[in-house]
Amino acid sequence: MLPIEVLKEITVKTPSKIVLLVIDGVGGLPVGGKTELEAAHKPHLDELARRSICGLTDPVYPGVTPGSGPGHLGLFGYDPLKYGIGRGVLEALGIGMELGAGDLVARGNYATADPKGIIVDRRAGRIPTEKNKELCELLQREIPEIEGIRVEIRPGKEHRFVVRFIGEGLDARIEDTDPQKEGRHPRPVTPTHPDASRTAEVVRAFLVKAHRVLKDYHPANAILLRGFSQLPALPSMGEIFKLTPACIATYPMYKGLARLVGMEVLEAGSTIEEEFAALRENYDRFDFFYLHVKQTDSFGEDGNFWGKVKVIEELDQYIPQLLELAPEVITVTGDHSTPALLRGHSWHPNPFILYSPNERTDDVDRFTEAACAKGALGRFPAVAAMTLMLAAALKMEKFGA
Amino acid sequence: MLPIEVLKEITVKTPSKIVLLVIDGVGGLPVGGKTELEAAHKPHLDELARRSICGLTDPVYPGVTPGSGPGHLGLFGYDPLKYGIGRGVLEALGIGMELGAGDLVARGNYATADPKGIIVDRRAGRIPTEKNKELCELLQREIPEIEGIRVEIRPGKEHRFVVRFIGEGLDARIEDTDPQKEGRHPRPVTPTHPDASRTAEVVRAFLVKAHRVLKDYHPANAILLRGFSQLPALPSMGEIFKLTPACIATYPMYKGLARLVGMEVLEAGSTIEEEFAALRENYDRFDFFYLHVKQTDSFGEDGNFWGKVKVIEELDQYIPQLLELAPEVITVTGDHSTPALLRGHSWHPNPFILYSPNERTDDVDRFTEAACAKGALGRFPAVAAMTLMLAAALKMEKFGA
Repeated sequence: MLPIEVLKEITVKTPSKIVLLVIDGVGGLPVGGKTELEAAHKPHLDELARRSICGLTDPVYPGVTPGSGPGHLGLFGYDPLKYGIGRGVLEALGIGMELGAGDLVARGNYATADPKGIIVDRRAGRIPTEKNKELCELLQREIPEIEGIRVEIRPGKEHRFVVRFIGEGLDARIEDTDPQKEGRHPRPVTPTHPDASRTAEVVRAFLVKAHRVLKDYHPANAILLRGFSQLPALPSMGEIFKLTPACIATYPMYKGLARLVGMEVLEAGSTIEEEFAALRENYDRFDFFYLHVKQTDSFGEDGNFWGKVKVIEELDQYIPQLLELAPEVITVTGDHSTPALLRGHSWHPNPFILYSPNERTDDVDRFTEAACAKGALGRFPAVAAMTLMLAAALKMEKFGA
Repeated sequence: MLPIEVLKEITVKTPSKIVLLVIDGVGGLPVGGKTELEAAHKPHLDELARRSICGLTDPVYPGVTPGSGPGHLGLFGYDPLKYGIGRGVLEALGIGMELGAGDLVARGNYATADPKGIIVDRRAGRIPTEKNKELCELLQREIPEIEGIRVEIRPGKEHRFVVRFIGEGLDARIEDTDPQKEGRHPRPVTPTHPDASRTAEVVRAFLVKAHRVLKDYHPANAILLRGFSQLPALPSMGEIFKLTPACIATYPMYKGLARLVGMEVLEAGSTIEEEFAALRENYDRFDFFYLHVKQTDSFGEDGNFWGKVKVIEELDQYIPQLLELAPEVITVTGDHSTPALLRGHSWHPNPFILYSPNERTDDVDRFTEAACAKGALGRFPAVAAMTLMLAAALKMEKFGA
């Protein structure tokens, strides 16, 4: 990314508006000769591509498969190699936990230990989410705090939970206790920096108490912690880009990521239709909208090619509404690819559309991976998308005399 | 390149295999309207391009002509601007000298000095290689060591040789003694850092003795040294990429470069046929193969357009053998261009083919500079080739949560 001092110097506040439409994991791989985008009937997205300048983005680096954190940070204009988001923080955001600066969070697993304390199942047989909730309530009741540090325990799905420590002087430089393989004891709580030794004591004491509470709750008689982390210190989008940004998303994790960079999170319901309604209703109040479509990624992860195609086709119907609002810039892209063929995130670059009266166009006339690969924007790091959008919205002044 | 800590974190050991076929200097410039690649009849390489995703690589930076060191380091995944290989080291590798950590090497020239010690021919009339060998044996016999530092002198071709100093505390920060122009005295041995002053004394003493030994061997009565250097500290490919890599090459320099990054150098004979036989015979023992074809570069350097074309056509016949082995990833590219028209290395980017069942394809159907320039990989730094190959071989995990 451009150095922050340069960004602060050249960005300007204007009334022009930008809509960044992120279709999660939209890029794919061919099944029967066509990718999900090639198989979908999506006349409005294709028409938008025809009227735009197109390209391909690498979220982190060629060949690197990004998690959701790096994938989004890049699109928000933050170098994902510079600004890391810990696993604990991301999990906390994913279950809608609001974090304060200095809070320490870790991702937890319920696990099964044998009488000697050796882990025989790292996921406690994937206990039902209902059981997980009960156990989290039990732990919360029994361990409200440790040595003056407040403890919060919140369930995720199946065997997953998040533990949050709230207090002064916490330090995340602590190794995972998850041994990663069955047949081993949990790893001891080990600080990797001397400043984290007091925090390590707190975590150790928490684990001792938790194991005492859980001892009769076989198969969930142990817990494993990993991804100790704290909120990263991210300068806000208002500060560096002079934007007043809003987030329209249906899943907690993306709302949490948006909050990290200073977006206001709007009420957006749970469907694409409701998300576009939220865009219309709040259109006057902001100059940057991040609109997130989740289901493409979910179907990709499930290996459901046609499910993913359907979501793209559903989304396509809302593109005319977007054009009616007439923002100065519309960008349509993915945060990473999720080919149904690979059933997971992948490293393949994302098709990218930049629509603006202030931009050149090219001869790309379809929103597909192969068509965008021939676009006039070429292949570029996703982190550059933000300055391209700001430029097309005439929100950047000349650099240098 | 990606930071090494990131690479170490996300790369994983898997049984999948990668073959990197480097056709040295393969990129060219048109002579009579066609480049060497365009003039060659190479149906198998073109068919491979058709089934692959293609692009162009810049070895170091757009416009920069790389030597063999930077050209290869980039392809091996090491940023050539970060990891330098000194001329002395490269020459030593080129004559098959095996270096230890801390050894100091320099490239030497036999030269002609007049009675006042002024250099009148920097190459001693390009003495025959046989004469060179005799003189090196003589020097070796007369100067086995200097002040406890062991000396090794080995001939190259014509007037070229390599001198190696072996001992404790050697430091390469010494200026060349080669004055670069005739009509001047050799430059004095000058350390550029105080820590190199003891080493400079050793080199001075060596030169005094050598000139005494050579004084009656006109025209080779002087020597000039340049490129003082030591083995760079390169983390191994095993360490950062978790690969078990092998090198199949016929020239010492490329074997030496491969050893620098931790490859096992296989017996590979002297022909392309023998190289592919070595690949087949050792296929089960490694998960990464670097196969180097030298003659394209040699003919390019000679300005022999059709000689270079012929090598490409010969190589083409072995592509089906490569496909039969069915590695997860095949990459075909050059380390730099060597257009016969320019009779030397050039800055022109390299055509690049990435073949893998896990990759997208594009509509490139020929392995040529112009065709690959339209490939969906676009134009990218050669150092990114490694992460692209690892990704396509499914040897990288997700970055970030």
